Amino acid sequence: MTDDQSFEEFQRRLLDAGILVGAGVDGLYGRSRDFEAVVTGVINLVDDWGHGLGATRLDFPPVVWRGTFERTNYLESFPNLIGSIHVFTGDDRDHAELLRRLDGNKDWPELLTPADVVMSSAACHSLYPLCTGTLPAEGRRFTVLGYCFRHEPSIDPARMQSFRMQEVVYVGDPAAALAHRDDGLEYGLTMLERLGLDMEAVAANDPFFGRAGTVLAAGQLQQELKMEGVTPICSVERPTAIMSANYHQDHFGVPFAIETADGKVAHSACVAFGIERITLALFHRHGLDLGAWPAHVREALGA
Amino acid sequence: MTDDQSFEEFQRRLLDAGILVGAGVDGLYGRSRDFEAVVTGVINLVDDWGHGLGATRLDFPPVVWRGTFERTNYLESFPNLIGSIHVFTGDDRDHAELLRRLDGNKDWPELLTPADVVMSSAACHSLYPLCTGTLPAEGRRFTVLGYCFRHEPSIDPARMQSFRMQEVVYVGDPAAALAHRDDGLEYGLTMLERLGLDMEAVAANDPFFGRAGTVLAAGQLQQELKMEGVTPICSVERPTAIMSANYHQDHFGVPFAIETADGKVAHSACVAFGIERITLALFHRHGLDLGAWPAHVREALGA
Repeated sequence: MTDDQSFEEFQRRLLDAGILVGAGVDGLYGRSRDFEAVVTGVINLVDDWGHGLGATRLDFPPVVWRGTFERTNYLESFPNLIGSIHVFTGDDRDHAELLRRLDGNKDWPELLTPADVVMSSAACHSLYPLCTGTLPAEGRRFTVLGYCFRHEPSIDPARMQSFRMQEVVYVGDPAAALAHRDDGLEYGLTMLERLGLDMEAVAANDPFFGRAGTVLAAGQLQQELKMEGVTPICSVERPTAIMSANYHQDHFGVPFAIETADGKVAHSACVAFGIERITLALFHRHGLDLGAWPAHVREALGA
Repeated sequence: MTDDQSFEEFQRRLLDAGILVGAGVDGLYGRSRDFEAVVTGVINLVDDWGHGLGATRLDFPPVVWRGTFERTNYLESFPNLIGSIHVFTGDDRDHAELLRRLDGNKDWPELLTPADVVMSSAACHSLYPLCTGTLPAEGRRFTVLGYCFRHEPSIDPARMQSFRMQEVVYVGDPAAALAHRDDGLEYGLTMLERLGLDMEAVAANDPFFGRAGTVLAAGQLQQELKMEGVTPICSVERPTAIMSANYHQDHFGVPFAIETADGKVAHSACVAFGIERITLALFHRHGLDLGAWPAHVREALGA
């Protein structure tokens, strides 16, 4: 069976069971009550871990200030995945032209202007502006949750255009950042294995754009900056990343002017959980009937 | 005290207490753990009501298919509030130009093209395509939750650019739609009063755009299609709408080709809860220390 056939089959089973509902375009779905019950359980498990580490929890809306976004360097690395929000600022006459274009199936969005906000590409982006300045000696830790947008329409149910990412983030000195990344990888793998998933840790790279991206990806792999926790969803040969643990070095410390207590550029690390992907992996593993899942899994999720 | 002073004072108190966190632009905030605990409690109360009515629960992501959006007539009525998502589809050379513009503080979003998705303006919009065709005799009922975007930057903390809306929606025959609207208004007011809020029901109108909008608003008011549940947040003279109950007549039945079992155009009604506004009203009413709220309120919210 090809990947495409596996994706289509799993998607069809989810849609037939009403766990996901199609929303007109690839990678966009409504979520059922059962799906959301599992989502809530997973979010609470990650939040409990962050809370135990003394992390401040912050939930952000699905959009981020354009000024923040432009400083993250996301446009350099992943221009093909971003979403910029454009709005109408015209008068009655402009509105009439907008509606004429809409009726004539012409390009009405051309009349819009960029807003102050863009789609959030990663949950942690909203945190770094809060850290600008000098950190306390122990650094800072956050648990952050938010919807992210990635423009990559796909029939793979695990590759949604709009999905929730929850991250436990450390900002501070390099050694502690690296330790956070490593401890978080271990914690996440154990947590997901307890939920019944077969997990494997692999060194990975982000899907950097274009020719220059090939070099960036090789460097990231070679330095082992990104580790992923993968599990089979649609394919055993090509398991899906449902969590990642990333050491950013000074990638955010520099543009957001974050300093450690001893005056060095801050490093950061995040342990990121793909909430929809984890939820789909659990439905794949335990079946589409939530009521028939193993009792200890339902108990752990409160679902 | 002017409205602006009231907004600023309440915003400052929320920021000082860490219940909201500024995100660089008016109307955009991070939410604290306590804020989200109340949010979850409110969502569960609305969901329980919908569940009791036999509603199907569906949660949608913050974006909607452009094809769905264009059929809702939202562009006709509220062009100034929409958000269209634009993406980069170029090659290496286009990417280089994008980065040149970014570095030069020039208009890089000009190089983008409209995506298949736009920001969701109302949670219920995603439901109507699911109803296209002939309904069962009893109609259909949904509880729907999702982030909505409204481009109206404001210092009023209750007027966010990105916020959650939860709606219990009925689609079917006109009499049942009207009854759903009226029953839902009563249920919502009682539910919110039990949480300690002083509620009042008022006939209201949507903020239709432009000159033509004045006529639409007057018609909506005169026919009493929209009722709002209002409560004082920043001002007693100008209370804030935290819920609304709307009879849409055939506004969605016509463009989405929804028919009742006896072959007539379906009517619809929704009872909509502004989750962030309700949460802010509760913090305003009971104080910024969640631990000091009345026991029965915390119990009802599970917070």
